[in-house]
Amino acid sequence: MTWVQLAMDLAGVFFFAMSGSLLAARRRFDIVGSLMLGTCVGLGGGILRDLVIGQGVPNAFASPVYLLPPVLATVLVYRFAASEHRYAGALTVFDAAGMALFCISGTQIALEAGLNPVAAAILGLISAVGGGVIRDVVANEDPQLFHPRGLYAIAALLGAGLTSAAESIGWMNAGTGLGIAVLVFALRMVSLRYRWEIPLAARRPRERDRAATAG
Amino acid sequence: MTWVQLAMDLAGVFFFAMSGSLLAARRRFDIVGSLMLGTCVGLGGGILRDLVIGQGVPNAFASPVYLLPPVLATVLVYRFAASEHRYAGALTVFDAAGMALFCISGTQIALEAGLNPVAAAILGLISAVGGGVIRDVVANEDPQLFHPRGLYAIAALLGAGLTSAAESIGWMNAGTGLGIAVLVFALRMVSLRYRWEIPLAARRPRERDRAATAG
Amino acid sequence: MTWVQLAMDLAGVFFFAMSGSLLAARRRFDIVGSLMLGTCVGLGGGILRDLVIGQGVPNAFASPVYLLPPVLATVLVYRFAASEHRYAGALTVFDAAGMALFCISGTQIALEAGLNPVAAAILGLISAVGGGVIRDVVANEDPQLFHPRGLYAIAALLGAGLTSAAESIGWMNAGTGLGIAVLVFALRMVSLRYRWEIPLAARRPRERDRAATAG
Repeated sequence: MTWVQLAMDLAGVFFFAMSGSLLAARRRFDIVGSLMLGTCVGLGGGILRDLVIGQGVPNAFASPVYLLPPVLATVLVYRFAASEHRYAGALTVFDAAGMALFCISGTQIALEAGLNPVAAAILGLISAVGGGVIRDVVANEDPQLFHPRGLYAIAALLGAGLTSAAESIGWMNAGTGLGIAVLVFALRMVSLRYRWEIPLAARRPRERDRAATAG
Repeated sequence: MTWVQLAMDLAGVFFFAMSGSLLAARRRFDIVGSLMLGTCVGLGGGILRDLVIGQGVPNAFASPVYLLPPVLATVLVYRFAASEHRYAGALTVFDAAGMALFCISGTQIALEAGLNPVAAAILGLISAVGGGVIRDVVANEDPQLFHPRGLYAIAALLGAGLTSAAESIGWMNAGTGLGIAVLVFALRMVSLRYRWEIPLAARRPRERDRAATAG
Repeated sequence: MTWVQLAMDLAGVFFFAMSGSLLAARRRFDIVGSLMLGTCVGLGGGILRDLVIGQGVPNAFASPVYLLPPVLATVLVYRFAASEHRYAGALTVFDAAGMALFCISGTQIALEAGLNPVAAAILGLISAVGGGVIRDVVANEDPQLFHPRGLYAIAALLGAGLTSAAESIGWMNAGTGLGIAVLVFALRMVSLRYRWEIPLAARRPRERDRAATAG
């Protein structure tokens, strides 16, 4: 793993840990709960990825440096998180930033482990959304992965797919990576801002028929 | 893995993916959420099984063909799922069908990986119920595995045990497999239809004593 | 694994299985659900630990003897659990006892697998709290790990850290292990009894400012 990849991975852990600690603050957990939840959200997606790849002990356990971002996030939330009504917004921004970084680093790590490009992109997606699902299940909310406002899985899958493609054709470098991350982040935030909607899981023609008849 | 096993495994993935997509439709998730949830439910039990077996990358990632059943299920639910009150019934039928197939294929895969017959049957059970637990936890409902109507874990465990026994004594073939699958499916559906009840986890003698005294 | 370690591990499985079966009784699950939930809670933390260590099939599957404690717990709860209002108290005691044993045995197993002392302590923590998180997520409650009354993660982390330190400097023996287990159990129970409180995840200065102004 290069220094750039490590820095990107640690930054992603930090962003997700912030989203976990902010949730802990919103739910009035204590500071230890904040550290535990931040750690689970920050490291969960990557551990899941490394378990699937199956090449020995996950990064997060092999290198203790991965424990620092959750500690930093807990301290920052304790020190600066002030008004409750801003938690939800900040949580969404940190979640989008973590997703934008992890869909890239997750895909790269999977490719380096020898997975085929399709599987690598799926693993990038899992890295990018795994921590958030843990956070949402703990919060007893419908996970954003399944029930998002705006684009969520699509943005992460696009980033993972572009990374996989760029690596395959040899176009991946720091600039490409930055471009993909900005694209994923922007797509997520814009889709939230303008409330883009995706069709529902079921068309439910009969209800519409009934409505048409009633109308 | 033989063609029969692969076909059975893919059919099981499809049935579980249908149950996930039907839940997504009932909860009014969007079509991407339906695909994500169907994929998690369809592939979750098998990935869990493969992680425990620990022989490299799980099947679902090694062969992209495993991604097709969830896509098909999402399309079918989008196109045909019409009236909400029938979702619950259809979900139960697809779940039972997936369970009937996975308790067999999961046990066989575990035996081929060299596990002892008891552990293989337990892994067959995990394959058969793992995806459903993910679905129910996401839905914030008590998982059927722990709080079923009718027989659930017992039916899956019976199927896994029979498979393990049949493989051990060399009686396993397509006919035996079909017989076990039909038995498990029928047991699940009949126990639901006739509301078979299993004793509660605690006898609670004092409450009964009190009731007897009061009566 | 020595006989002492195996006995300690099985006792930990039994205590966690009791907490799972007691929850099943409280939620009026049936007796099969009690067995399933007890098994998941008793074995979940250890399986998670073994998956991370990544040395072949988890203990719980390799040795069928690990299935006995959950069966025993299910029978005991069915036979003796009587009055509902005592379930919560008993559940907490069994959970604390399981945690006290697993933070030691989990750390030792991770050290034997060659992990560094910090990672081993984290894995001891995961062993000690993993089963309980599964139990609480199934119960749709905020997991104790994130939102405890009293000390929870801190007690487990202290026990895991002391075990890791004692092993590293060669002071680990049956007496040391017993001492650590008693310390962790006592810390958990005393913190509950006297309602020790840890600062919240966020200081929320503005609310306090407002309160000060209002006062």
